[in-house]
Amino acid sequence: MLLTRTPAILNAMLRGMPDTWARHNEGGESWSAFDIVGHLIAGERTDWMPRLRILLEYGESHPFDPFDRFAQQKESQGKSLEELLDEFAEARNESLAALQSLNLVEKDFNRRGRHPALGVVTLSELVATWTVHDLTHLHQLSRVMAYQYREAVGPWSAYLGVLKCTGHSAP
Amino acid sequence: MLLTRTPAILNAMLRGMPDTWARHNEGGESWSAFDIVGHLIAGERTDWMPRLRILLEYGESHPFDPFDRFAQQKESQGKSLEELLDEFAEARNESLAALQSLNLVEKDFNRRGRHPALGVVTLSELVATWTVHDLTHLHQLSRVMAYQYREAVGPWSAYLGVLKCTGHSAP
Repeated sequence: MLLTRTPAILNAMLRGMPDTWARHNEGGESWSAFDIVGHLIAGERTDWMPRLRILLEYGESHPFDPFDRFAQQKESQGKSLEELLDEFAEARNESLAALQSLNLVEKDFNRRGRHPALGVVTLSELVATWTVHDLTHLHQLSRVMAYQYREAVGPWSAYLGVLKCTGHSAP
Repeated sequence: MLLTRTPAILNAMLRGMPDTWARHNEGGESWSAFDIVGHLIAGERTDWMPRLRILLEYGESHPFDPFDRFAQQKESQGKSLEELLDEFAEARNESLAALQSLNLVEKDFNRRGRHPALGVVTLSELVATWTVHDLTHLHQLSRVMAYQYREAVGPWSAYLGVLKCTGHSAP
């Protein structure tokens, strides 16, 4: 299960990295590695398992709360990257323990809930999205890190796909 | 240094993963996780340190050998993903030990060599490119993995940036 692996992936990529890699973004309002880890923590706290519980409790009758994509700006303030990595690992462990304690069976994965913008979604889609959301941010993270070396590679930039990625953010 | 971390990142992402994640690609001639790790091994064996040695020995007078982007197809045949991950970790360690044993000093990083297509490049650019090449393939890997769940996420695909990435391969 990829969800169990993400804390270790982020540790391998980021723990102990200098600020060049951790605190620099892709310009403007874009996110640094530090911002990305903060965003993943916010997802554990207010998005994935809370939505799953709303789905199980209310079905399609009660839409999920909209997700605050900027919650981490306040929550991460004054913390180190290492603190955020620890916090994410702990929050993810708690989420997965809570998921397991629900003892979901196969037919539960067809249960439906209501997304505030997308309409009817299934529990199965919610869990798959949780996974692909991790991958979206690992994809972003490798791009943000590569961006810091965009000039250092000289003429090779023509061959390095990650430097041509313009991001694919949600609207 | 990111180069030292890549084997651990790949292990965290891939070791023990089922074939869904490891052997499936993005359709057509695109690469699976298995192919990507094979390509990274080939880079250690025939590209990065060999080019660095050519640069130090011949300067601009002798272009690097062109890199075979499909070398892994033969080399990886019949191996397990775990074998490739071990092989990559070992090859990378050897490359970095060899790099360290050269005892390069700051001014060496300005030394110039000749890329067969891009022309004059510096040692500094070569090492930066080695790093960003790792990130290009981590970026690709997260996208290839996400692709396997493109239908499972249902309507959420609209929000998941990694599913909109069309790849940015070298020409």
